[in-house]
Amino acid sequence: MADIYHQVGIKADINEAYRALTTLDGLSNWWTIATGNIEKGDSLNFHFDGISVEMTILQLVPVTKVVWQCTEKEGEWKDTTISFELEQTEDQVFVNFSHTGWAQQTTLCAHCNTKWAVFMLSLKDYLEKGKGQPFPDDVHVNHIDT
Amino acid sequence: MADIYHQVGIKADINEAYRALTTLDGLSNWWTIATGNIEKGDSLNFHFDGISVEMTILQLVPVTKVVWQCTEKEGEWKDTTISFELEQTEDQVFVNFSHTGWAQQTTLCAHCNTKWAVFMLSLKDYLEKGKGQPFPDDVHVNHIDT
Repeated sequence: MADIYHQVGIKADINEAYRALTTLDGLSNWWTIATGNIEKGDSLNFHFDGISVEMTILQLVPVTKVVWQCTEKEGEWKDTTISFELEQTEDQVFVNFSHTGWAQQTTLCAHCNTKWAVFMLSLKDYLEKGKGQPFPDDVHVNHIDT
Repeated sequence: MADIYHQVGIKADINEAYRALTTLDGLSNWWTIATGNIEKGDSLNFHFDGISVEMTILQLVPVTKVVWQCTEKEGEWKDTTISFELEQTEDQVFVNFSHTGWAQQTTLCAHCNTKWAVFMLSLKDYLEKGKGQPFPDDVHVNHIDT
């Protein structure tokens, strides 16, 4: 098993951070184009270049926690879980991100770990500066990266 | 136990990538000011704002592998291991980075995971564009981050 954890602190209100994780508009502004529905039990689809990834919303705890289950039928993301836990402090809101349940530590897992950091910084820029770097404007960490 | 893995692909020659990991000048250009000696068994010190971190060089396999043991006497980095494995392909050199042996998954470990991605991108910029973002010019991932 392998797990990914990131933490970023963002100068934003926790309600705005929660909105960025729980609306199609918010998600599309820092990760990639999102479609679907956004209530608990619904499915969300995240679209990349000719590929989409499906997530089912497992938990929504306003305004502190969002959990998705990846409901892909195959591939390394199958049965993995993604969560965002938000914690407001005086200066910033901390986003504690995890992508857990990888069957094993692989090269793709290492690649995705680096990419999740890129997207966490995109979320930070979106909330602090009004503009993120969602796909396909994200930082490419290698030269076959889409 | 918790482990960190990243992968970045860099349009550079593997010899240049190895040099960036095995010379004081190279290391200072993407991570932070480094002092010490750089043969196997030697100690390297990496300097941050009033803090330095000591590493002992465990392995040097030109031009594919560098392994350090953190020889700090206390703190969460104590007894952890950092490695860089380089793999040349037609288009790029892949840097497979790991920081393993954390006693447990903690908030600091999540923070450092995000920061290692920041420094891997700094290494990429240094090798591809001639200029990295070493400390203190690195991207700060939170507002108490030094």
